[in-house]
Amino acid sequence: MPPRRYAIGRADEATHPDSARATLSEFLSTFVFVFAAEGSVLALRQAFGTDVVGAAGNLLVALATAFALFAAIASSLNVSGGHINPAVTFGALVAGRVSLVRALYYWIAQLLGAIVAALLLRPSTVGMRPVGLYVAHNVGNLNALLMEVILTFGLVYTVFATAIDHKRGTLGTIAPLAIALIVGANTLVGGPFEGACMNPARAFGPSLVGWRWNNHWVYWLGPFLGAGIAGLIYEFGIIQPEVPVHTHHQPLAPEDY
Amino acid sequence: MPPRRYAIGRADEATHPDSARATLSEFLSTFVFVFAAEGSVLALRQAFGTDVVGAAGNLLVALATAFALFAAIASSLNVSGGHINPAVTFGALVAGRVSLVRALYYWIAQLLGAIVAALLLRPSTVGMRPVGLYVAHNVGNLNALLMEVILTFGLVYTVFATAIDHKRGTLGTIAPLAIALIVGANTLVGGPFEGACMNPARAFGPSLVGWRWNNHWVYWLGPFLGAGIAGLIYEFGIIQPEVPVHTHHQPLAPEDY
Amino acid sequence: MPPRRYAIGRADEATHPDSARATLSEFLSTFVFVFAAEGSVLALRQAFGTDVVGAAGNLLVALATAFALFAAIASSLNVSGGHINPAVTFGALVAGRVSLVRALYYWIAQLLGAIVAALLLRPSTVGMRPVGLYVAHNVGNLNALLMEVILTFGLVYTVFATAIDHKRGTLGTIAPLAIALIVGANTLVGGPFEGACMNPARAFGPSLVGWRWNNHWVYWLGPFLGAGIAGLIYEFGIIQPEVPVHTHHQPLAPEDY
Amino acid sequence: MPPRRYAIGRADEATHPDSARATLSEFLSTFVFVFAAEGSVLALRQAFGTDVVGAAGNLLVALATAFALFAAIASSLNVSGGHINPAVTFGALVAGRVSLVRALYYWIAQLLGAIVAALLLRPSTVGMRPVGLYVAHNVGNLNALLMEVILTFGLVYTVFATAIDHKRGTLGTIAPLAIALIVGANTLVGGPFEGACMNPARAFGPSLVGWRWNNHWVYWLGPFLGAGIAGLIYEFGIIQPEVPVHTHHQPLAPEDY
Repeated sequence: MPPRRYAIGRADEATHPDSARATLSEFLSTFVFVFAAEGSVLALRQAFGTDVVGAAGNLLVALATAFALFAAIASSLNVSGGHINPAVTFGALVAGRVSLVRALYYWIAQLLGAIVAALLLRPSTVGMRPVGLYVAHNVGNLNALLMEVILTFGLVYTVFATAIDHKRGTLGTIAPLAIALIVGANTLVGGPFEGACMNPARAFGPSLVGWRWNNHWVYWLGPFLGAGIAGLIYEFGIIQPEVPVHTHHQPLAPEDY
Repeated sequence: MPPRRYAIGRADEATHPDSARATLSEFLSTFVFVFAAEGSVLALRQAFGTDVVGAAGNLLVALATAFALFAAIASSLNVSGGHINPAVTFGALVAGRVSLVRALYYWIAQLLGAIVAALLLRPSTVGMRPVGLYVAHNVGNLNALLMEVILTFGLVYTVFATAIDHKRGTLGTIAPLAIALIVGANTLVGGPFEGACMNPARAFGPSLVGWRWNNHWVYWLGPFLGAGIAGLIYEFGIIQPEVPVHTHHQPLAPEDY
Repeated sequence: MPPRRYAIGRADEATHPDSARATLSEFLSTFVFVFAAEGSVLALRQAFGTDVVGAAGNLLVALATAFALFAAIASSLNVSGGHINPAVTFGALVAGRVSLVRALYYWIAQLLGAIVAALLLRPSTVGMRPVGLYVAHNVGNLNALLMEVILTFGLVYTVFATAIDHKRGTLGTIAPLAIALIVGANTLVGGPFEGACMNPARAFGPSLVGWRWNNHWVYWLGPFLGAGIAGLIYEFGIIQPEVPVHTHHQPLAPEDY
Repeated sequence: MPPRRYAIGRADEATHPDSARATLSEFLSTFVFVFAAEGSVLALRQAFGTDVVGAAGNLLVALATAFALFAAIASSLNVSGGHINPAVTFGALVAGRVSLVRALYYWIAQLLGAIVAALLLRPSTVGMRPVGLYVAHNVGNLNALLMEVILTFGLVYTVFATAIDHKRGTLGTIAPLAIALIVGANTLVGGPFEGACMNPARAFGPSLVGWRWNNHWVYWLGPFLGAGIAGLIYEFGIIQPEVPVHTHHQPLAPEDY
């Protein structure tokens, strides 16, 4: 079992100013991310009046998503840990790296940030109804669910391997880029099939404001499953639990390569 | 109220060689940035004779803008702070992080750099008239203004969270990339609606040389409002004012994640 | 002859927990990489029903490949060295930088990761048969082989120059990006001619699951030849063998530039 | 006059093993770069049988160029300084930062690398004749020359501001990316007008092998002029000459921002 550093429901964490700052940071960063990710889809409609804009349109949405996520993670990395994603918070919770109280704070902040982003998109885009994510007509729910599980597994595996396990060295510097780019790549893979969510907040805000709930559960269950699996595999399979924290971050065999 | 480190109008700053170097750096970097950002729009016209070049054209302009901005920020980061943008300077002024004298110097340098870039684009592009930014025919002025406020808020929030708050560690290294990529993402969002300026100098140089002033005020008021809001929220909401400068940069709870 | 740091078949390495972790890391990272690289090709078919999607389609596949490779390398850099590629492991073996036992472990993990990725792509993509890589109809086998040799030479030269030779400083931080971006650039070059593999695992998984073996040998022989040549040239031509390990990493002449 | 650190024609530098390694590094990195930059143009012809492939084609060539340049610079940064470009070497020579002997070595290595790349592209692309760069039919020679001067000014200004002036800190880490991305952005600007060379070796190799010499002088004179101007302005205008070398790299006013 991984080291559980926080008692569940510790009262002092709920009221500590650091928690407030971290929660505000998650809210603002998720707002910036969802505004750009959903906004890029609406911008394609404004420019071309259709969603079928070829491979360049897919690429545009994936790059807007990855670029905004990079800025959002970098902006909250040192304050909140840079989750910006309820599934990432869930993975950290499963691995014992964040307390349940803090996870609850983060989830509320992430969902609120996504909702405010979707709300402000309406007047900004002259009244467009948010699109959100949807499963393609030829794709079954279980296919979509499996895709979400795998894509989110890749994302949260990257989060653990770069932002959590070795965060104090070189990898800490490139962690936000690794996380943003795997989201960009995975968006290119899953996008035409089921939207490539990997982040329930990304789906929830536009769904609520645009009131579109078809297959919405896929974008919660898939990411949580993928994140949980990744967190457990990484925490038990790769990280050495028995080594003290201050030394286990160095490369296992630096002369090995 | 944030700590105001500079008296307004300090005489020695106006004549100090560091100020001259910083101002020259802002001028040169803004020149390089605006030449590429506006030039990429003209290059599309040269290549295809039309602005309607599909999603790939939008992507091309956004990447040219983000890539050039990254180089421009990196080139002046250690000399002037890497503003390259009157709205960023305004946000820093509102938060008490730059003196009014230095802000005035930067504004003049930024506008001059943008004007010289637009002037030199004419002979370089065989006489093309700069296009600048414009509001789409189906978008109202207030919609455009709101979009500018939000996009610039995201930009200046990223500037404060990466280049100002934690600049001495990992985040200092990735700050220019975070700033450039949020501008790239936001350009993909706002571009088809109102040009996605976020930077009055980017709009002003081509507007002056191309003599196009429709809705020009949107590209001043929107960025300044967004930058001011971001500066105030970050300075008061996230940064811990009571902690001494040399220690408040460390992660609030490094073991928390 | 380069220094051979490992006896071939050292028994303790085969059973050491570090080897198990490193092998698991190679397996997981190669899985994440191949799922995105091959999945992006299938996503184009899902979206547009054809492979002929213009330059934007080529760009989409190259960026998905490069972005996922960056995340995969970053995720295993400190655990396994971040090979993710049997040809890179071969180059390291030829240069005496990895033992044969460890190379065998890595090769098995890389191939397994690629196979599992291709297997899981089938249900995720509603039953699509993996495409893998193929030589264009107007390209001869020897032309394709030469292209593979040169592209992989560029890749493994970059691996040695950034991740191996100077890994402890600035270059260690940007090594994964340099490796990912040369793969992205080379994919844009070789893609239309012969698929631009540079990585036998990338070819093998989809070939096995999709059961397509035309010219498959090209994607083994080419990368191994290119990697071997790059490893030998760099190890003997650039690295100074006579200088002790702890000092030869500093710039040769820092004041020279 | 800038400090001239090297006597012209110092005999020991010509025969020192460091010079041989640096020259080999320039040769290999320029080979990798030109193979990808020119190869991406040929790949578009192979894929679509035409050069008119829309904005996505322009973007593809610019990204291949920028990505390969990043890898090439990173691969030789600590060995040769990462010039990969006769114009960059000229700018360093004008500013007194490299000796004439070393500059001559670099120029020969860069041109040889570009020639070998163009030669090997022929069999790799099934006999395609290299295209190189050309001035568009509606663009005059002087317009093209001015564009080259300005684009190369932006490139070499970035080289001085990131790789030379502050190379020991954060900027040293992001210098290769800043240089690669300004080349990417400027390629998007100048490409449709005159090819956006900024690098005589990039033009020379394909011109020689493809035997196309129209306006070739533009790709030498323009980059050398732009590089010389940038080197002189930066060396005299931004860098503080009177401060000792070991201290003038720190930010001029770290508390200023």
